Amino acid sequence: MIKVGIVGGTGYTGVELLRLLAQHPQVQILAITSRGEAGTAVSSMFPSLRRRLDLKFEDPARANLTSCDVVFFATPNGVAMGQAPALLDAGVRVIDLAADFRLKNVADWEQWYGMQHSSPEWVGKAVYGLPEHDRAAIREARLVANPGCYPTAVQLGFMPLVEAGLVHLDHLVADAKSGVSGAGRKAEIATLFAEAADNFKAYGVSGHRHLPEIRQGLSRMATHPVGLTFVPHLTPMIRGIHATLYARIKSEADFQQLFEERYSDEPFVDVLPPGSHPDTRSTRAANVCRMAIHRPQGGDVLVVLSVIDNLVKGAAGQAVQNMNIMFGLPETDGLWQLAVLP
Amino acid sequence: MIKVGIVGGTGYTGVELLRLLAQHPQVQILAITSRGEAGTAVSSMFPSLRRRLDLKFEDPARANLTSCDVVFFATPNGVAMGQAPALLDAGVRVIDLAADFRLKNVADWEQWYGMQHSSPEWVGKAVYGLPEHDRAAIREARLVANPGCYPTAVQLGFMPLVEAGLVHLDHLVADAKSGVSGAGRKAEIATLFAEAADNFKAYGVSGHRHLPEIRQGLSRMATHPVGLTFVPHLTPMIRGIHATLYARIKSEADFQQLFEERYSDEPFVDVLPPGSHPDTRSTRAANVCRMAIHRPQGGDVLVVLSVIDNLVKGAAGQAVQNMNIMFGLPETDGLWQLAVLP
Amino acid sequence: MIKVGIVGGTGYTGVELLRLLAQHPQVQILAITSRGEAGTAVSSMFPSLRRRLDLKFEDPARANLTSCDVVFFATPNGVAMGQAPALLDAGVRVIDLAADFRLKNVADWEQWYGMQHSSPEWVGKAVYGLPEHDRAAIREARLVANPGCYPTAVQLGFMPLVEAGLVHLDHLVADAKSGVSGAGRKAEIATLFAEAADNFKAYGVSGHRHLPEIRQGLSRMATHPVGLTFVPHLTPMIRGIHATLYARIKSEADFQQLFEERYSDEPFVDVLPPGSHPDTRSTRAANVCRMAIHRPQGGDVLVVLSVIDNLVKGAAGQAVQNMNIMFGLPETDGLWQLAVLP
Amino acid sequence: MIKVGIVGGTGYTGVELLRLLAQHPQVQILAITSRGEAGTAVSSMFPSLRRRLDLKFEDPARANLTSCDVVFFATPNGVAMGQAPALLDAGVRVIDLAADFRLKNVADWEQWYGMQHSSPEWVGKAVYGLPEHDRAAIREARLVANPGCYPTAVQLGFMPLVEAGLVHLDHLVADAKSGVSGAGRKAEIATLFAEAADNFKAYGVSGHRHLPEIRQGLSRMATHPVGLTFVPHLTPMIRGIHATLYARIKSEADFQQLFEERYSDEPFVDVLPPGSHPDTRSTRAANVCRMAIHRPQGGDVLVVLSVIDNLVKGAAGQAVQNMNIMFGLPETDGLWQLAVLP
Repeated sequence: MIKVGIVGGTGYTGVELLRLLAQHPQVQILAITSRGEAGTAVSSMFPSLRRRLDLKFEDPARANLTSCDVVFFATPNGVAMGQAPALLDAGVRVIDLAADFRLKNVADWEQWYGMQHSSPEWVGKAVYGLPEHDRAAIREARLVANPGCYPTAVQLGFMPLVEAGLVHLDHLVADAKSGVSGAGRKAEIATLFAEAADNFKAYGVSGHRHLPEIRQGLSRMATHPVGLTFVPHLTPMIRGIHATLYARIKSEADFQQLFEERYSDEPFVDVLPPGSHPDTRSTRAANVCRMAIHRPQGGDVLVVLSVIDNLVKGAAGQAVQNMNIMFGLPETDGLWQLAVLP
Repeated sequence: MIKVGIVGGTGYTGVELLRLLAQHPQVQILAITSRGEAGTAVSSMFPSLRRRLDLKFEDPARANLTSCDVVFFATPNGVAMGQAPALLDAGVRVIDLAADFRLKNVADWEQWYGMQHSSPEWVGKAVYGLPEHDRAAIREARLVANPGCYPTAVQLGFMPLVEAGLVHLDHLVADAKSGVSGAGRKAEIATLFAEAADNFKAYGVSGHRHLPEIRQGLSRMATHPVGLTFVPHLTPMIRGIHATLYARIKSEADFQQLFEERYSDEPFVDVLPPGSHPDTRSTRAANVCRMAIHRPQGGDVLVVLSVIDNLVKGAAGQAVQNMNIMFGLPETDGLWQLAVLP
Repeated sequence: MIKVGIVGGTGYTGVELLRLLAQHPQVQILAITSRGEAGTAVSSMFPSLRRRLDLKFEDPARANLTSCDVVFFATPNGVAMGQAPALLDAGVRVIDLAADFRLKNVADWEQWYGMQHSSPEWVGKAVYGLPEHDRAAIREARLVANPGCYPTAVQLGFMPLVEAGLVHLDHLVADAKSGVSGAGRKAEIATLFAEAADNFKAYGVSGHRHLPEIRQGLSRMATHPVGLTFVPHLTPMIRGIHATLYARIKSEADFQQLFEERYSDEPFVDVLPPGSHPDTRSTRAANVCRMAIHRPQGGDVLVVLSVIDNLVKGAAGQAVQNMNIMFGLPETDGLWQLAVLP
Repeated sequence: MIKVGIVGGTGYTGVELLRLLAQHPQVQILAITSRGEAGTAVSSMFPSLRRRLDLKFEDPARANLTSCDVVFFATPNGVAMGQAPALLDAGVRVIDLAADFRLKNVADWEQWYGMQHSSPEWVGKAVYGLPEHDRAAIREARLVANPGCYPTAVQLGFMPLVEAGLVHLDHLVADAKSGVSGAGRKAEIATLFAEAADNFKAYGVSGHRHLPEIRQGLSRMATHPVGLTFVPHLTPMIRGIHATLYARIKSEADFQQLFEERYSDEPFVDVLPPGSHPDTRSTRAANVCRMAIHRPQGGDVLVVLSVIDNLVKGAAGQAVQNMNIMFGLPETDGLWQLAVLP
């Protein structure tokens, strides 16, 4: 059994992590911490876990996290960079679901996240945890930077094209739509039901924090810089991301076959038949990215539709997938639940 | 491994049954039938099952259902009464998720369902499948009438009070609210998104088909007839039933304790602490009924709040629970998934 | 032109009041105040008002409210009782959309609202503003206590029965469901989209602040105390209240006719034909209460279904209706918009 | 008073047209026809119109439409082309809310709509009814082809850029999201609440019927052919379209100023301040298109966000606007309602 600790856990990625880990056959949850909720039973905050998870939030200062094999940080940005180094030094492996270790360029990170990075030395050692691209490195990683939700959907959708060099890289477009849980479990007016329901809007068009992360990832795959316009939108659903990706063809190929072959061994990427339109609900509560490739009117523009559950393949599920890889477990352990439809 | 067949399966209870059975450790799905969809891959209709369920809908005439240990009917009312008897005679056990065998009084059934009953002889032999009340009989049953969604939530909520004879039985009130999936996967204007979203309405106030089923169940528990006003409502959510139950106290008792004791051994009934308000999402995709008991202002009226996922504990999950009981499996086999929240 | 001032106005009843008043043919909005938003253009907070309402929030201390003919308080409970008396003394008429002057029993009010009442002398002079019951008094009122949303739907639904003495008054039941805008425009986790969407729950079962208000209103109509169980629920829609009312018949009557006659002259109450089920959306954005009367199975229980838009007939629309009555305008002025469906 | 007839009217554009026309100060509705609903009171189908519209659906064969000044067709594609010519010959002016007369190239129309055009002679005489581009021609038109919902949002968003020749026209991208009412009031499984709620998907990526309409419109504005990739999506809300438009800059300009000047005299186009993100609800139930212009990271790609209510500015409202222009009324008559928010 892998001994697991969770820092944070009162947010949506936290409760999703708990749902997955509580059902994982090889995991024992040792501790979950929350400064604000210390002493509260986890299941009194999240009644979905009643009678199945007998655990209380502990004060971070008192929790014995160094006894864990791995600690997940499901915290706001800026927390893991402060607390993870001590655990790492104690030999505990760490998976950060926040953004602290995602950007390799520390100056960039500090600009986009508006704070100073307190452990830049760990940025270089961190492994970006997109298993479909980074599996080998994840296996050995001490610190995994779990990708953001938009970056997961967008990178997986572009990856085969970018790796193969078949599209122009100067004007990629990623038009992405997210369910409201992506904004987190925070008391804010903009994400109230009466604000976000029956409504649709773009946000962060001038620059969203996931833009540099996606650009970094695609540039890695292309081995040179890419130009990307990324527009995120808020759509009135709880879970789900739908990325609609546009790229101009540079070289001809059988694009459907390209995608199918690229992902043929991937347990969690599903390339749909030609002509398909994946819906987000076909991934609800499941660790899977489904995608379809279109070439409208036979023209020179490719459209890739890529969908995930932002809380699973876009966050907690991918984190568990990374843990499975890090500890040599079957990659599907604890992640084999079918999507909930309808 | 239990060999399972499914008749019907293109509706919401059908796909939910497939989700649960495909993940059940002791089940092999031999066949699923659909007259209209014969030849279609199940996963092309329900992409949530892609790469996990390699099965095609078969023509009912050609499917080899008699090789099954048990056959589930996830069909419209009136189908099982025609097709189940031949299977039963061949030694196959049957679980009907529709209403054909729920009412013991055939004349009543014919009036409420507007058709003649074609196998009244099996009505008497059928066992009503509410495990928390009928577990012993289910174990031996050849034919189980799986309860309706409203009847499950309402009966479980009233049961401890009615069995103990602590409330007046002449004027019970059950005000119930259902998600739209309860109306089935049928092309109808009233359940279109643009009709049912951002909207709330009662329906069937003059008489809903679940009224006689609930009355029969409560009368059984009370061992004499009860008077019940039952008003169902449509609420803009996909899954979930919330039953708000009103009863006048006849004899004093510790009602919280009564409920906790009545359900202490039940794996799928969860009595919340005093003062709680269960929300339907705490049961989403899980086979559980959660409830809370209130006595507003210390008066003589009890209010019970009882919530389920209409497609799980209110349909497919309860059917699998019944199968587990019939075949001597641990009752929680294949039904131990945690609720999906948010 | 009636010169109007608004205190508060950054909440949902505030913006709805602005929508109605900005389109009212006899109204000139002189000022709107908000301590927190002083200086902000109203239309930058509510872009639905862009290019149609050229007004800024003003500091309450500086706004010249005494020049107004009438001032609306769209503030949290406890504000109007502090600020209204000075305006009233200056001859300005006041309509309070909050609860400060609704309960005649000050001790009761202080208990339910958890604060001391700072102007009990005005409680007695305030007129409860349910036009269908209090029209004559409203005409002369200096201070109108605008009814709560639940109390409007419930009182209008019970009124004909209670006034006529045709039902037992000791065990009335009001099972009410509200859209999430009823909780106000406040940053709170419980009403986030990801909490309230695809979900249904009761709340305040042990005692909601609208209970004493409804009891007071019904007791007035009955001229003696009534017994009421009131259970409010949160339903995943933006606007709308659906009250399902249960009462035992004491004396026979043609109940449909009773309701039709009681409301025959009312412009804003619509009694549907027998057998109807009003849906909340048929009142969306309109100042109307629609209702239907049922007698299930011909038994001795009456079920009344009563629906309103909580922000219109349940708040801002009723406030404008009260203003029209107070100033001798046609009652429908500015309130004649049709409901928005779908 | 303008005497108005409506053919069709049981769909969402029909009921919206009724809502607007019933409140229009210069309109008298003479007749509304429906083959299937002849004899039914309009308000029994749409209770939102109760007590305000005393009209029954008439059999099309018997309705005296030739007495009308103008007849609106709110019918499925293919109906107007059959019935409008006789009315036109009788001197009645016609506004078709369907697609029969939108495409100037009849062969194209027949291919995209899969039927033969029965009155190609009227295609040439029809005026495309986008007031912001075609006001002068609409004034004189006998037959107006009312634009589609997507084409309205997309054309208004691109128009200033395309007219001014400031962007590259070979690779425009329009990523558009629509509420479910855009699919019409038809009994279909794909738009059931339980299918479309809490879900997001693209559709028609290989080619949607609005693509040739938008291309024709933009090409007209550019005076030469444009290349456009158009991807429509279904989003879980009732009303609203959000078009996210991408174009590469060819020549520098003050783009904000360009948009503001282009639309400065337009009553129904609202250009938001720099940095804004219009939400669809700010147009709910109102005849307005709101838009914002972004230039992310100061790069060479412009992003225009354009939102409308698909049933108002995208259908019935624009049709009434066209009627106002045709009959010399103030363009805002009957269209001055404020958006409903929340």
